[in-house]
Amino acid sequence: MQTIVFENKPKIVATGSIAGPKECQGVVGKFVDKTLQDDTFNEETYEKAERKMLLFAIEKAIENAGLKEADVRMLVAGDLLNQIISASFAAREFAIPFLGVYGACSTLSESIAIAASLVNAGYIENAVAATGSHFSSAERQYRYPLELGCTRPPQSQWTVTGAGAALIANAGSRVAITSATIGKVIDYGVTDVNNMGCAMAPSARDTILAHLKDTGRDASYYDLIVTGDLGALGSRVLKDLLWEKGVDVQGNHIDCGEIVYNVIEDEFQGGSGAGCSAVVFGSYIFDKLRKREVNKVLLCATGALLSTVSSGQGESIPCITHAVAIENV
Amino acid sequence: MQTIVFENKPKIVATGSIAGPKECQGVVGKFVDKTLQDDTFNEETYEKAERKMLLFAIEKAIENAGLKEADVRMLVAGDLLNQIISASFAAREFAIPFLGVYGACSTLSESIAIAASLVNAGYIENAVAATGSHFSSAERQYRYPLELGCTRPPQSQWTVTGAGAALIANAGSRVAITSATIGKVIDYGVTDVNNMGCAMAPSARDTILAHLKDTGRDASYYDLIVTGDLGALGSRVLKDLLWEKGVDVQGNHIDCGEIVYNVIEDEFQGGSGAGCSAVVFGSYIFDKLRKREVNKVLLCATGALLSTVSSGQGESIPCITHAVAIENV
Repeated sequence: MQTIVFENKPKIVATGSIAGPKECQGVVGKFVDKTLQDDTFNEETYEKAERKMLLFAIEKAIENAGLKEADVRMLVAGDLLNQIISASFAAREFAIPFLGVYGACSTLSESIAIAASLVNAGYIENAVAATGSHFSSAERQYRYPLELGCTRPPQSQWTVTGAGAALIANAGSRVAITSATIGKVIDYGVTDVNNMGCAMAPSARDTILAHLKDTGRDASYYDLIVTGDLGALGSRVLKDLLWEKGVDVQGNHIDCGEIVYNVIEDEFQGGSGAGCSAVVFGSYIFDKLRKREVNKVLLCATGALLSTVSSGQGESIPCITHAVAIENV
Repeated sequence: MQTIVFENKPKIVATGSIAGPKECQGVVGKFVDKTLQDDTFNEETYEKAERKMLLFAIEKAIENAGLKEADVRMLVAGDLLNQIISASFAAREFAIPFLGVYGACSTLSESIAIAASLVNAGYIENAVAATGSHFSSAERQYRYPLELGCTRPPQSQWTVTGAGAALIANAGSRVAITSATIGKVIDYGVTDVNNMGCAMAPSARDTILAHLKDTGRDASYYDLIVTGDLGALGSRVLKDLLWEKGVDVQGNHIDCGEIVYNVIEDEFQGGSGAGCSAVVFGSYIFDKLRKREVNKVLLCATGALLSTVSSGQGESIPCITHAVAIENV
């Protein structure tokens, strides 16, 4: 049993979201709270821009919920940068207790799961779960200097510039978090750091199957089964892997990475990064939930737990997926 | 109110701990489950040695509790390496749901707080909270190549080579976790990356004061108020800062960093690192609790949330301290 059932059904009262210029040309453009014209966000470095976006998303979620900073009881956040500096430095701006988490691109559902666990238990009345990423800070840290102009292979994805936050409380909305399935670390031996989608797909399968087994639900129970950033190729792999186990998600699966970009440039398989699911969920999907265009969503943010050092030392890519069931009640 | 009170008093059933050669010459040497003669632990790299230590501590905590891997419902862990690879790669070895956390050297109390929250709420029967660090992997990542033989300034500390894990369950021991106080990020503007103790002391004060206020307790309630890795200098700063607020911890405060080393070589202010509080708590202090030599401990692991990039970009050092009250019941 990997699933925690939330008897008190903590609610997502509001979200806050922000995205970069490239991202806003796509599906999220109409729904985010702020569209950036310039991905430096008037900061000197990409790292500071990333932090400022995360800060914006957190503040906006609080504001959109009709609350003040002083009303908020907990911040659960993480990001992709070393020592999760975006989250920690954003948290420095608030007098709110802070739990830092690291789940790579699974951070959105990990932080929602922890926040919902604490709210559901009655420990706190509310909490903000937040994450984000920035293309240029991720490239600098994980890959090559942008100035080098490296060619990207066709299996690669493009780190989303954006951030999203969700304010979770014991009341105040019809959008409820009904359960969370905490993932195990799954590693199928993929070593290609440009092919995160294929590395992560088996972990998405593992958590989705565990969730369906634990809850006794069929995949068709959900209007949408949303993965984080498998990308186009990884999504196809996930569908095949689930099909092998007799689970058909052909009709209700979407991947935030696959749908986030409209432009076809260098992003190949689509978006990735902790900000990918945070922006898509925090804007487009939450809007659909609020308008009751969808009523049952399984949000499965997917994370690749590698580092440049682990890959440099010849390791394969361990992955994790956490799932949270979000339903209109 | 930053404090979560655990009505069901989740228990620390057992711990597992391991430490390096230098560490085992000190107070923990008699109490750890394994003393390493060679800090490479028969691995090719220091990163792999760090992971192997963490793996050992987790396995040992499970074994010492009389359980099997299949009995364990959750692993909450983190470490200092980029993308917390020690924790993630250790978690890969288990078929146990995993929550990755990052709180720098505050990871021990953060992971215990989260694990206890989940167990207390009845979501899971048990969980392992774990962390560790390695001197040489930390030096490589945060400071200078060892081969460079850099001189260390007198305000510096020495990253502990070691790991510790605690198995937390709803029954099975008299050592109970009665509450947890989640810290806020506190930054007093210290920019000297060699002086983490002074950077972190204000955050330790903030959380200790919040804990005492929330619980209505006097500092003298506790037999021991244990900070993580302030070191000798940082500990003195903390005592002064608390004294200014009318709180006297002169008689019952110890710092894991200050007491961990007996040898006086280059470690100056003492130990640091996520492994510092993990090893000292997991061996020496837990032994005292079990033998009822102490009965009321406030464990306050302290974390400096900087990165090489944030310091390189001119930032000061944001810090956090989480406190867990551990009492014989």
